[in-house]
Amino acid sequence: MSQPLRLGIAGLGTVGIGTVRILQTHAALLARRAGREIRISAVSARNRGKNRDADLSAYAWEDDPIALARRGDVDVFVELIGGAEGAALDAVRAAIASGKDVVTANKAMLAHHGQALAEAAEAAGRVIRFEAAVAGGIPVVKALTEGLAGNEIRRVMGVMNGTCNYILTRMESAGLSYDAVFEEARQLGYLEADPMLDVGGIDAGHKLSLLAAIAFGTRVAFDAVQLEGIGRISIDDIRRAGDMGYRIKLLGVAQMTGRGLEQRMTPCLVPADSPLGQLQGGTNMVVIEGDAVGQIVLRGAGAGAGPTASAVLADIIDIARGSRVSTFGQPAASLAAAVPARASAPAPHYLRMALTDKPGALARVATVLGEEGISIDRMRQYGHEDSSAPVLIVTHKTTREAIDHAFARLPATGVVEGEPVAIRIETA
Amino acid sequence: MSQPLRLGIAGLGTVGIGTVRILQTHAALLARRAGREIRISAVSARNRGKNRDADLSAYAWEDDPIALARRGDVDVFVELIGGAEGAALDAVRAAIASGKDVVTANKAMLAHHGQALAEAAEAAGRVIRFEAAVAGGIPVVKALTEGLAGNEIRRVMGVMNGTCNYILTRMESAGLSYDAVFEEARQLGYLEADPMLDVGGIDAGHKLSLLAAIAFGTRVAFDAVQLEGIGRISIDDIRRAGDMGYRIKLLGVAQMTGRGLEQRMTPCLVPADSPLGQLQGGTNMVVIEGDAVGQIVLRGAGAGAGPTASAVLADIIDIARGSRVSTFGQPAASLAAAVPARASAPAPHYLRMALTDKPGALARVATVLGEEGISIDRMRQYGHEDSSAPVLIVTHKTTREAIDHAFARLPATGVVEGEPVAIRIETA
Repeated sequence: MSQPLRLGIAGLGTVGIGTVRILQTHAALLARRAGREIRISAVSARNRGKNRDADLSAYAWEDDPIALARRGDVDVFVELIGGAEGAALDAVRAAIASGKDVVTANKAMLAHHGQALAEAAEAAGRVIRFEAAVAGGIPVVKALTEGLAGNEIRRVMGVMNGTCNYILTRMESAGLSYDAVFEEARQLGYLEADPMLDVGGIDAGHKLSLLAAIAFGTRVAFDAVQLEGIGRISIDDIRRAGDMGYRIKLLGVAQMTGRGLEQRMTPCLVPADSPLGQLQGGTNMVVIEGDAVGQIVLRGAGAGAGPTASAVLADIIDIARGSRVSTFGQPAASLAAAVPARASAPAPHYLRMALTDKPGALARVATVLGEEGISIDRMRQYGHEDSSAPVLIVTHKTTREAIDHAFARLPATGVVEGEPVAIRIETA
Repeated sequence: MSQPLRLGIAGLGTVGIGTVRILQTHAALLARRAGREIRISAVSARNRGKNRDADLSAYAWEDDPIALARRGDVDVFVELIGGAEGAALDAVRAAIASGKDVVTANKAMLAHHGQALAEAAEAAGRVIRFEAAVAGGIPVVKALTEGLAGNEIRRVMGVMNGTCNYILTRMESAGLSYDAVFEEARQLGYLEADPMLDVGGIDAGHKLSLLAAIAFGTRVAFDAVQLEGIGRISIDDIRRAGDMGYRIKLLGVAQMTGRGLEQRMTPCLVPADSPLGQLQGGTNMVVIEGDAVGQIVLRGAGAGAGPTASAVLADIIDIARGSRVSTFGQPAASLAAAVPARASAPAPHYLRMALTDKPGALARVATVLGEEGISIDRMRQYGHEDSSAPVLIVTHKTTREAIDHAFARLPATGVVEGEPVAIRIETA
């Protein structure tokens, strides 16, 4: 058996401690699978005195993650600090400069600095692995980078923020408003310190941008991800979409089109009976479509100590086994600059609006839609509530641009009350 | 860029030609991802003259796959011949003896000779990869061997024979008998030359035994797989199970229990609204449960030229990238002998029987079940058809042994007509 693989683990939150625990409890199993002992040399966290419910006495302690990254007895620097900048980034840079391989769960750092870090690592002959950064325990980075490497990837889709999916499914099942469930989620500790990372789609957008880079051989382009959170989703829309056979998900979609790379992390309607539509609670799902393989669906826990530590361990074992795959599946220098598509590919849309109780109201709206080239697939008008009646429309394929044009003309019809709503329908 | 990786492809059926096609159409993409050119040196098949709808003129031809396996210009022997013995096995042995790595889609060969081949390969410093042997395009071998390598695996389950799943879902949707759908499937070319490979569960059992070896670190033990095909599933049971909220699947289950390794490939009831229950047609699904990761579900096409070739390519690219993972995830010599569990773990069961129209008939059956320690969770009696009434029972957890004992006593009650049916219920 070869030399032990020696780890320095920076960040001892739930994932860090989860990783330590697996290394302690499964040492023999991991050694058998990795072909060598995997050993923790040193650990680091902000507060040494904190009670962590794990015995760390066998490991050297560093207050400074950079010092940890530079230790001579560390082969792999395991970055579980988090945050796009600051300590995590400085320490990863130091680790690469000191000739260490890096395992990280840090989607924000990679979304912003992935290209530079990948180039630095490759120049130093080191690898950066980040299975834990995307969809927790689901081995999706590996599936895309390795398992489906024979495919030209057509599309990557997914529900990749468990908190948003929890909020949306809880709104539906309990009939509660967004604000009420948001507050519940806050109290349950499901939300990040900055909740916009979750409900604004930023966290999920980070993940999507990393998968897109692998899928399409392009540089990570998080800034080009079209982001829209779930804050404007109403219980009304959840119910009405249900009536039409759909569920609302915060859905990431990345696809290469003739007009460039499309990356969206936005609320979408998906068929209620599709795998994505049936996804409940905090579970994640990623759908990958390749030219040879067709559609592959991966489902599992997207967060939590165990699942995320499972992903961290997979990367560590890969390194122990000698796997040296490029960060994004091909040499960083060969990644093409992403050319963002200026508009999304056409899709059916769900429209909801309130029409006043006047003869010909629906005809006027239909006329405007028709003049903007939007054709109607299905329509449903409900009974009048107060002075207006809710109307739901499922369109045939159309662009968001056409809908925006039509919506701009609706006030002039004099029959639409309040703001109309449009949500894209994504079908598998 | 390093030296090209040179392939010898033996077997030019749909998968072989599918593999050649991807290598031809995606040469640049594959080279970028693999870090080196992947080139076909030579091919082999039984009949050189056959029209294969692919241009093979650039490759050397060998009539004999063993000669192909021994060629000096071949680094990786790609075995797509099939069959547990004969040409495939001889050629793979020759390849290993000649210092080649092996990529194969041959589940039968590995189920019977996997241990010996893995030992031979490791002794020669070579690898055997077999992603294409299990669940077609789904990267499940990789997920289990690498992506979830940090977990102690609790259970592996799956629907791994698309033909059986097609037959069962078609019986349900069209209300046709097993025999009628079997004949349809035969005419559509969905069945193997020996249909028992499919409907007898043998093919799926081969796959399960390979996954179990990886999951539990045991030698492949196909002979210990409890096999039961779908030939005795009636349209009646499909309908009745549906009434009770279940669907019938040919389900593989491998788990390590206190009493040994349990491997079953048998018809089971699964909740209709579970991921396995919702699986329609020829699609495959594998569910993996690990102590850290929880439950991971993988879904995709289990057969076909494209999906299977996608898996073959993944293995080839891994080898091109220098990955050298042991065949079953740890050195073959370290795999433990599988100790088969003598009986399955207790589970709820679905029972169906026809009771004669006599007062107290149900009470007599319930008494027998109770005396054998079988407790009833739910029961449903239908109206009388002719002289008897169908009765469905869902039991609490019990053993097949207890049910067999109870069934043996039923004739003596004088109230049961025909053969009662018992099917295990597997819950996630």
